Amino acid sequence: MTTLSSTDPRTGVDTATPLTPATAEQVQTVAARAADAFGDLRGRSRPWRAGLLRAMADGLENDREALVTTAMSETGLPQARLDGELSRSTFQLRLFADVVIEGGYLEAIIDHAADTPLGPGPDVRRMLVPIGPVAVFGASNFPFAFSVAGGDTASALAAGNPVVAKAHPSHLLTSQRSYESLAAAAAAYGAPEGTIGLVHGQQAGADLVRDPQIAAVGFTGALATGKILQSLIDERSTPIPFYGELSSLNPLVVTTGALAERGEQIADGLYTSFTGSAGQLCTKPGVAFVPEGETGDALVAALVSRGEAATPQTLLNARIHDSFDEIRTRLINDGNARSLLAPHAGEEGFSRTPAVLEIDADAVTPDVAEEAFGPLIVLVRYRDLDQVRTALAAVPDSLTATIHAGGGEDDERVALTAVVRDAVGRIVYDGYPTGVRVSWGMHHGGPWPATNTQHTSVGATAIRRFLRPLAWQGAPQEVLPEELRDGPVDIPRRVDGELQLAEG
Amino acid sequence: MTTLSSTDPRTGVDTATPLTPATAEQVQTVAARAADAFGDLRGRSRPWRAGLLRAMADGLENDREALVTTAMSETGLPQARLDGELSRSTFQLRLFADVVIEGGYLEAIIDHAADTPLGPGPDVRRMLVPIGPVAVFGASNFPFAFSVAGGDTASALAAGNPVVAKAHPSHLLTSQRSYESLAAAAAAYGAPEGTIGLVHGQQAGADLVRDPQIAAVGFTGALATGKILQSLIDERSTPIPFYGELSSLNPLVVTTGALAERGEQIADGLYTSFTGSAGQLCTKPGVAFVPEGETGDALVAALVSRGEAATPQTLLNARIHDSFDEIRTRLINDGNARSLLAPHAGEEGFSRTPAVLEIDADAVTPDVAEEAFGPLIVLVRYRDLDQVRTALAAVPDSLTATIHAGGGEDDERVALTAVVRDAVGRIVYDGYPTGVRVSWGMHHGGPWPATNTQHTSVGATAIRRFLRPLAWQGAPQEVLPEELRDGPVDIPRRVDGELQLAEG
Repeated sequence: MTTLSSTDPRTGVDTATPLTPATAEQVQTVAARAADAFGDLRGRSRPWRAGLLRAMADGLENDREALVTTAMSETGLPQARLDGELSRSTFQLRLFADVVIEGGYLEAIIDHAADTPLGPGPDVRRMLVPIGPVAVFGASNFPFAFSVAGGDTASALAAGNPVVAKAHPSHLLTSQRSYESLAAAAAAYGAPEGTIGLVHGQQAGADLVRDPQIAAVGFTGALATGKILQSLIDERSTPIPFYGELSSLNPLVVTTGALAERGEQIADGLYTSFTGSAGQLCTKPGVAFVPEGETGDALVAALVSRGEAATPQTLLNARIHDSFDEIRTRLINDGNARSLLAPHAGEEGFSRTPAVLEIDADAVTPDVAEEAFGPLIVLVRYRDLDQVRTALAAVPDSLTATIHAGGGEDDERVALTAVVRDAVGRIVYDGYPTGVRVSWGMHHGGPWPATNTQHTSVGATAIRRFLRPLAWQGAPQEVLPEELRDGPVDIPRRVDGELQLAEG
Repeated sequence: MTTLSSTDPRTGVDTATPLTPATAEQVQTVAARAADAFGDLRGRSRPWRAGLLRAMADGLENDREALVTTAMSETGLPQARLDGELSRSTFQLRLFADVVIEGGYLEAIIDHAADTPLGPGPDVRRMLVPIGPVAVFGASNFPFAFSVAGGDTASALAAGNPVVAKAHPSHLLTSQRSYESLAAAAAAYGAPEGTIGLVHGQQAGADLVRDPQIAAVGFTGALATGKILQSLIDERSTPIPFYGELSSLNPLVVTTGALAERGEQIADGLYTSFTGSAGQLCTKPGVAFVPEGETGDALVAALVSRGEAATPQTLLNARIHDSFDEIRTRLINDGNARSLLAPHAGEEGFSRTPAVLEIDADAVTPDVAEEAFGPLIVLVRYRDLDQVRTALAAVPDSLTATIHAGGGEDDERVALTAVVRDAVGRIVYDGYPTGVRVSWGMHHGGPWPATNTQHTSVGATAIRRFLRPLAWQGAPQEVLPEELRDGPVDIPRRVDGELQLAEG
């Protein structure tokens, strides 16, 4: 069996690992173990499951040093960034423990038997139940928070499902170590063996999605890969939900008023936002609408001068490195963008300095609407709101849109909101879309191809993806889940139409 | 232009109608009108929208006589059934008015700006917003409650979306009249023209699903048609959610204990359930697991004798009529089922008496697992729970499963619940799956091919299908929807993680 190798993007050097791609049989075994674990996990109480999530967070915390060091050598991301990201992973696990304890996510409803205008109505009780084993495909750019130990895993486990993760080829050892941390913590806590599983290898990923034991797929990554996974699902005799978070341009609009008020500040913020993590964030503002005229010119110049002073940053892998250059070249050749700042490379590995392109709003076509992972921004110069509206219609929908307006521009802000709201899942005002807050209300999703249209992959409500409703009609108390039985309960419920807070 | 004809299934006689299939251009116009209406509807308040739903219910009520008479001649369903069904349509519209007023469906969440373990968190506010114009494909078997004036329409409108319905070819005139009632009521109320639209013709239906203005599709009907619609959606440059409710066998299990206690009562209930509406209900118990031995034999005999005494009931259309015979024949020839009661026809039109088939549990294969729309039941004779478990694994998942157990059989009931729970969306105890209650907690969905896995097409939470989350970050009050602004509001919200009831 050929072993897999891991590449250090800082040097471009490949190193052999002891890891091997899972065979079809091994995938089947891992999936079967997950199905067995589901039989156990579904019977556990919410406090037990919250404890499991917290134990897993502690397990990651204990292995922090090894995890971060491994991730540095596989991703080229700086230590501070990776330290913060691991904290985000543990924060997510603990947030979902709180979500599970609070219990509102169950959407419990009780309709007592009653006479209705349509005749006698039986007793109907409904709540959300776990969907079954979930396959999680991590992203290259978040080796912790959107990978094996990431939000999809945390929310799927929180819902009561086992998880089988597919290791990202760009951080194989980080994936393996994360899995080992989580699995050890789960075992020590008393969770069944198949609670968390891991497979390596591209073919293993495909086999996993086809496996009849898998009940849902969470994926963060490239649009093309997402489409392949969706087509594998379509071929299954039983299709299952696919939650993809695929691609996003994240338009940002800045008004003349905003620039007049705080041009330098916006230059700083926007520069940091499109170059942070070497521009490899799904929420990176990939296009910014900048007004024509002096204030706009000043912003453009400020971004370019900051980029000129920059040293090369390491990109995650060879594919991103190559496609960064390819897409940039295509935007210039086919998309009529002008290069204001060309990137240059470091001495070794996959690194680039920031790149700035400029285009007139009237020239925006779907050709300039490709996400370039890496420190690239396309500045769209506009005269008026109509141009912004028309140009935005030519680009695909996004996870986010951002609006910077001035103090006296309430009308402009309302009008711009109306322009962007149908095209995105989150609207940011006078801020930046990167640095997604992990909280109860965060929504990280959007219309296709940002996808997750009806759901989020960040925040408390991400748990909804891995649940399905189940109703019990005329059920004796003993077959009902505790949360739906008569008497006071520790979760909010809707009883005969009326929302009631948790009791006791 | 060829006009469409309407068939009276009681006689089989076709009558010309003045209705014509919509051309591609007409579909485009209707969809564009819906998109225009969306711009208006989304700005209206919840009380306004509740008023619209109630006005539509009143409109249907005013036209009751004409609607029911028309439906009788197109569907062959009896007047009492259709009268009840129209009441269900108006009840649904009014229930959704209550849902809209109550406002919990918005899932409003406010996270105030705060210092978090991951650094400063911005103010994030999230709620569900309407998804856009919805295409609704009605079912043949519910000309009111699952058609133009049905639950998909009511829930899509309640969410704030316009609806374009595709008329079912089996009840063209009923569809047209329903549309006219709803459109007139909407116009009188002051709603924009495109609030509700209608197209006729199969090609028009396909054009509608392909139209870029359409944001979601609701469909109740045959699995094959559902797959065609899904493939049309997959071909769109922007895929959209498809909410299908496709096919369901609805297994029912009866124990020896239940039969010993109330055998005659179960015979009555089960017979009524599988023959009601001529067996043309998506929740019809299509397979019943009956124990071997005397009590089981008695149930079988009681069902057969009731069927022998029956007079033919009209089926909805020629297709259902033909496939009823075809599927029954196939179940006998390929599926090894024994005919205990063969159906016979009436003198004219598309009618049949009930049919009863019997098969041993060990012989159950996917070949006997086809839904036969019409008054047919397959009785599966079993010795023990293991046989039930194995046989159920061979049949597709369903909307419902039903368990009849005796007073002392708590363990059996719990064990049977564990056998069926992963395969269905609703478990009915000591009752029947037909006669779906329209209430806050009803869940009408299930794993594929019952579909709507994550959602319901009946009950208050059906509204969730036509909504999507949107988040506002750092937003000034004036760009926020009223429901997310500071200060007391009349809806429940989650604020900084804590669920709060409506105020004032």
